[in-house]
Amino acid sequence: MNKNPEITFGTRIRKSPFFESTIKWGVKGFTVYNKMYMPTYYKSYLDDYFSLANDVTLWDVGGQRQVEIKGKDAEKFIEFITPRDISKCKIGQCMYILLTEKNGGIVNDPILLKLSNNHYWLSIADSDVLLWCKGIASSNNFDVNITEPDVSPIAIQGPKAHLVMEKVVGTWICDLKFFYFKELEINKIPVVVARSGWSGEVGYEIYLKDGNLGNQLWEIFMKAGEEYKIAPAAPNQICRIECGMLSYGSDMTLDENPYDLNYDKFVNLEKKANFISKKALIEVKNTGSVKELVGIEILGEPFKDYVGDHLPMYLDNKPIGKITSSVFSPRLNKNIGLALIERRKDNNNDDYLLKINDKSLNIKICELPFLRNK
Amino acid sequence: MNKNPEITFGTRIRKSPFFESTIKWGVKGFTVYNKMYMPTYYKSYLDDYFSLANDVTLWDVGGQRQVEIKGKDAEKFIEFITPRDISKCKIGQCMYILLTEKNGGIVNDPILLKLSNNHYWLSIADSDVLLWCKGIASSNNFDVNITEPDVSPIAIQGPKAHLVMEKVVGTWICDLKFFYFKELEINKIPVVVARSGWSGEVGYEIYLKDGNLGNQLWEIFMKAGEEYKIAPAAPNQICRIECGMLSYGSDMTLDENPYDLNYDKFVNLEKKANFISKKALIEVKNTGSVKELVGIEILGEPFKDYVGDHLPMYLDNKPIGKITSSVFSPRLNKNIGLALIERRKDNNNDDYLLKINDKSLNIKICELPFLRNK
Repeated sequence: MNKNPEITFGTRIRKSPFFESTIKWGVKGFTVYNKMYMPTYYKSYLDDYFSLANDVTLWDVGGQRQVEIKGKDAEKFIEFITPRDISKCKIGQCMYILLTEKNGGIVNDPILLKLSNNHYWLSIADSDVLLWCKGIASSNNFDVNITEPDVSPIAIQGPKAHLVMEKVVGTWICDLKFFYFKELEINKIPVVVARSGWSGEVGYEIYLKDGNLGNQLWEIFMKAGEEYKIAPAAPNQICRIECGMLSYGSDMTLDENPYDLNYDKFVNLEKKANFISKKALIEVKNTGSVKELVGIEILGEPFKDYVGDHLPMYLDNKPIGKITSSVFSPRLNKNIGLALIERRKDNNNDDYLLKINDKSLNIKICELPFLRNK
Repeated sequence: MNKNPEITFGTRIRKSPFFESTIKWGVKGFTVYNKMYMPTYYKSYLDDYFSLANDVTLWDVGGQRQVEIKGKDAEKFIEFITPRDISKCKIGQCMYILLTEKNGGIVNDPILLKLSNNHYWLSIADSDVLLWCKGIASSNNFDVNITEPDVSPIAIQGPKAHLVMEKVVGTWICDLKFFYFKELEINKIPVVVARSGWSGEVGYEIYLKDGNLGNQLWEIFMKAGEEYKIAPAAPNQICRIECGMLSYGSDMTLDENPYDLNYDKFVNLEKKANFISKKALIEVKNTGSVKELVGIEILGEPFKDYVGDHLPMYLDNKPIGKITSSVFSPRLNKNIGLALIERRKDNNNDDYLLKINDKSLNIKICELPFLRNK
């Protein structure tokens, strides 16, 4: 019996190439990600979590769409939209980059894949990077072609992920370094295999390059993973918060700049290429950002579910920010979360409070990540 | 008992200011629209439909976000992003416009509201117009400020809508012409009331200007509508297809231009102001568009539900396009839909087919709208 109202399926939102398989394998919850239905859980949030933490899981992350940038000015264009220096990115390498607008606000935090010179994918979080890039290109003189190709990823995540991958693609996979990828075929299905993923566990993402073959690819992995107790699952809020991974839309939006997130390492103000947010980010760097993203522990009874609201956080009865993600972690046996608060002068741990209805809960600021697996 | 998996609530997708009310009033299905949860039905799709067709309904359409364009160049900027001539738009007037990109593809089909000189809202369909506009403005010399204000609409739709409105705002509402609006307060709640809506029935949209007062506003209308059998409902697929209204994402996307939809009347190639898609649309106009949007009747047994897939359409066993929306209409007692097909040389009615599994269904091309209420 469902707790929540049902999701409605229609033609406005897309089904991923793995949609039928997810239904067949018992998906119980959906969200929408980049205008595509995306599973959220199967057996239960907790069962899925333990499969991911202890064994291996297969995720439909087709909603992680690709924006393809091709053409003579592809590198120049990407340099223009990110404050990170991508000039050293090698063919076959992934890079985590932030896309920022004129005022320094974050538009998206995709993974960049360099497929060849002048040929890149942005593997995007949940915001319309296709329109963003087309808008910029439509009135500038970049010689680029910007499209959304027929490419949809699945993810294999968990401590036994490499065993499943070895069976499916061969032993060479053990030599694939973190944030590198390779193009290949799996039973004649064209894919890109990257060592990456949004879990903090060992993991791979398999970018399917032919949307007609999704269910076939899915079954290959489910079968290969049987002996390792593979389970269908989805991006897991508990694991990703444990590992301090941020979710665009939840923990950062257009209203936050990279410094607010303490993501200084993804900004290079001295890079050679010009970029949209340069002036704004130099100013923030000089004057200091006013917000900061912190890890928190919320004392008290274990939360029953992932919390679906941005809850306000207080210091001395004054609202000073909001909790952007929070959940009970079974491995750490406490409620953990992420919060965006007024930047502290020093890093001392004051008496922060969360008020829900009539109850006050104490909050402790924590170092991120809460857990380090790899 | 739900048919579909449940929707997952999290912090990445927003709750509208009416969210609590929709839960309280028994919402059973949700979709996501502009990264906001949006109800799809309450009692049943069919019950909701009859309430809308016979009485009056209240919808949470908070997902219809506003993109506010303010500043010295506001008019110039909007002229630049649409092929329609907006120079004659009066303060207090709404206009249906298409936003188009460099190649003529449709980015969105919002309602434009002119609040004052150099102050406009784009009341948008489901695509990220905020990023699109910011992308264009970030590298041009437009003196504009582009934001998403705290403005969320509800809709009162149905043949008794004017009776409810009269009770709530006064008799002057009867003089408000179609596609005009007025700013006012309802019990001190700041709103904009427009005569508009996505149903083909008589209707009004009430743009709430303070997100904290959503549930209060909701209850005012539910109470006032009691004597007219008001029911909570949602944008209704049956009614909107009956009236030939298109849904962005379903019936048009970036891959369609205005001519593909026979929307010539929303393109003015001779308008004074320059616009992004001018060159491309002149070319399409000269060479002719290759697709066309048509109304269709699908013969055979009544469909049980709104069809959630883009089904292929055939002529002489050759795929010639897809059905973009389809549903059974109780008022017309037939299956109706919209389709994007290869443009016909003449308007004769060939033997089109839809193949589902092993079954073939005959399709007849029909004139739009199927039904005219107003």
